[in-house]
Parts: sequence; structure tokens; C-alpha cells
Amino acid sequence: MRLRVDPLPTETLVYPDVVLVVDVIRSTTTAVALLEAGAEALYWVAGLEAAKAFKDADVLLAGEAGGVKPPGFDLGNSPREALEAPVGGKVVVMSTTNGTKAAHAAAKTAKHVLLASLYNAHAAARKALELATEEVAILCAGKEGRVGLDDLYTAGVLAEYLGLLGEMEPEDGARIALALRRAYQDPLEALSLSAAAQALKGVGLEADVPFAAQVAKSPLVPVLSGRVGEALIFKGSLPGQG
Amino acid sequence: MRLRVDPLPTETLVYPDVVLVVDVIRSTTTAVALLEAGAEALYWVAGLEAAKAFKDADVLLAGEAGGVKPPGFDLGNSPREALEAPVGGKVVVMSTTNGTKAAHAAAKTAKHVLLASLYNAHAAARKALELATEEVAILCAGKEGRVGLDDLYTAGVLAEYLGLLGEMEPEDGARIALALRRAYQDPLEALSLSAAAQALKGVGLEADVPFAAQVAKSPLVPVLSGRVGEALIFKGSLPGQG
Repeated sequence: MRLRVDPLPTETLVYPDVVLVVDVIRSTTTAVALLEAGAEALYWVAGLEAAKAFKDADVLLAGEAGGVKPPGFDLGNSPREALEAPVGGKVVVMSTTNGTKAAHAAAKTAKHVLLASLYNAHAAARKALELATEEVAILCAGKEGRVGLDDLYTAGVLAEYLGLLGEMEPEDGARIALALRRAYQDPLEALSLSAAAQALKGVGLEADVPFAAQVAKSPLVPVLSGRVGEALIFKGSLPGQG
Repeated sequence: MRLRVDPLPTETLVYPDVVLVVDVIRSTTTAVALLEAGAEALYWVAGLEAAKAFKDADVLLAGEAGGVKPPGFDLGNSPREALEAPVGGKVVVMSTTNGTKAAHAAAKTAKHVLLASLYNAHAAARKALELATEEVAILCAGKEGRVGLDDLYTAGVLAEYLGLLGEMEPEDGARIALALRRAYQDPLEALSLSAAAQALKGVGLEADVPFAAQVAKSPLVPVLSGRVGEALIFKGSLPGQG
């Protein structure tokens, strides 16, 4: 099984098989937390205006612009807030600066798109291996077109665990992510050094970083299950289930 | 001084100051070797057709497509061949699959563009610091839109040496490159694992890899000094010189 890591979404990437999309600070962490809190489905859209188009009584809007909740939205992009949010049985529409765009880039060509974070790292790795036939790719969202230490570190944690689960052939990006994971044994140290974590300090949301640094706390994996309009529909799945 | 590393050229990157372009296997290594062999200037173009437009009696064409010398070209992209080539006093026009495109991406916005490899790593780092006022950026060429272990490792060697020369503030990409450099103490081991090195095996040019893995053998730094038509003109410069 090939193990591939792309540090950034680019126009030319083609995915033949499974992609784990990573935006650990914060949208893929928040996605898992929303499912933990009982959300029925997540609709991922690539922009704020596209999100607003879904607004109605049964739908909640979640997301951020510049790190904070956009006007007219019900929720921000904080995984701590998500875990306590009244989302039981509801659809949550999400739009974020980097994560939702990366998911759309992956969904152009991939057979399976999963959302991965440290929070669901082991479950996401297991699910990816269950679905894959030739390649598990990890696509890092990065930060506004630049590589993110936090996302590539998370890719390294996923790659390391995938290597424990089966025989993997790491490509260049996977070797880089594994080297990074080994350089920082403490996930909180690695995440805290990232530009994404620094930006959260600026808006008073730095407590989201230790939340995002928790490894393998959730067995839930958001898996792309369809589309509606411009939205990708993610539903929660457990490894070994369907 | 900010220290920035971009693992891949992308459309949206903006460089305010100095960029070190790295395509260690092989075009930035070969560029240094051509200057060592006495070439007066290197004209870097982004495609084979653009290179052919410069063909005349006093100019040599060098480059590759699929790793080998294209039809009608005088030289391939082998640094071993370059060092022995009869290029004294001549202009060499170069077109390669990844390196020349990355240089053009950097040159869109940067104030100074330098070509760096392991072969001229220390000189390139010194020259970059001499020219920079706010940021030294290292742009990795990668391989056909994918990140290259060889280029990011070289960025790590450059970043490490820059840190010895002055106080640097590493951004996310620089921390990743430094972690990778520390994971492989032997440059030949790191380069040999890369997809670029594997591809050279396929065309019988694997002896270029140990050449490219030599660190700080040359004091020559190709520095962008102007343009002619679609070509970037690089001339050799020494640290401490102008």
C-alpha cells in the first residue's frame, strides 16, 4: 500500500483512492467534535456565502473568518464549543479558511474522502486502510497557501500509526511527515509552534490548541457520503462499520 | 530575520525579499557545476521550446525531459557532465522539468533570486544573508507538483547553516525542513530515498546522486542578474562580492 502525504492542496493533484484531509487547527478536529455532540451530518462548503445559502430553521451554520465566528453564523470553529453545542440530530454547515477548501480539492478526484485530526487519528487511519486498495493519501490543508507545521505533524502521527497497522510504502511526503513526528514526541509542543496556533492566540482562542493536540480520543471518522449543491456531505462512521 | 521554507512552488506565493531556489536533483547542482566549468552566464527558461529559441553558435543548450537530454540539446542535466563540459566563456541556456519553473515562480515577486544546492550550500546561505533585509525564503522545486524529500532536506541543511550565521526566526516550513535534516545525518541517505533519485536509476544516471549529495564544495552562487526575453539570467557570484 502506498503512503502519500501532500503538504498543501494544489490544483494539479490527482488522487486515485483514499484521502485523509487534515486541518488539525481546527476544522477537522471541530468536525469530529460536532459528530461526537450528535450532529447528523456535516455539509462542508468552500466559502461563507455558499454556507449562508443553506441557512434554514433545521440547519446550523459553523465556521470562521480570521479565526472568529462570521456574522450570522450559529457557531464558530472551536472544537471545545462544538462538543457542547446543541447540534443533536441536526445538519451543521461548515465553512473555514483552509480545511473546507482542502476537502473540496481532494473530492475532485478521490474515491473516498475522510476527515482526520489527532483527536480521531487512530480511527481515521483504520478506516482509511479498510477503504483503500492501492494508496492512502494524507492531504494537509496548510494555512492560506503555506505549509502548516500542525497539519504535517498530524500527517506524521497518522503515517506512523498506518505503519503499525500494515505494510506501507512511504513516498517522499510521508517520509518528511514521519521525520517531523519523530522530532516532536509531544504533540502539544509541535502544534503550539505552528502559525495556526499563534494566530489563535491573537483572537483569544488558544485553549483550542491543547484540545486539538489530544490523540485518539474519538472513534468517529467523518466520511464523504454524497453532495448537495456545492456542499460535501460528511457523516460519522466507525472503523469496522460499513 | 525570518526564515521561510516553501515545500513547493504555488501560484499564490509572494516573496518580499530573497529566495533560494532548490532543485538539488539536479538543476541547481548542475547550474553551479556549469559555472565552476567556466560558463559566463546561465539563461533559465521554463520550457524546451523557449530554450530552443535561444539556439545559436555561441550558446549551448542544456536540460532534460524525463531525466535525459532532449533532442537537439548540447548537454543533459548531469552535474558530472557539466563540470567537464566545454562551456568556458559561453552562455548556457537551461530548461528542466522542475527547477527552471520554480525559479520563474520565485522571480515573479522576489527582490533577489539565488540558486542553491548542497554543493554550494554554505556559500548560498552566506550570500542570501548578505542580500536579505527581512526574510530569507527557500523555495523547493519538488517533482512534478509533489514535494521532494531531496529538496526539502537541502532546505534543512541551508536552514541549519543560516541559523549558525545569524539569529533566524523559523516559520512552519523551516521547522519542518530542520526536523528532516536532523532525521538524516547523512545527506546521501536522504537524497537516495527520494523519488527524484529513484527516477535517475531508471535512466542509468544514479551516479549523479552522490555528486549532488556533496555539501559545500563550491563557493559559487548563481544570482539572478537580469532577463532577456523569457529567460532569467544567472551569473556566478561569491559571498562577500558585490
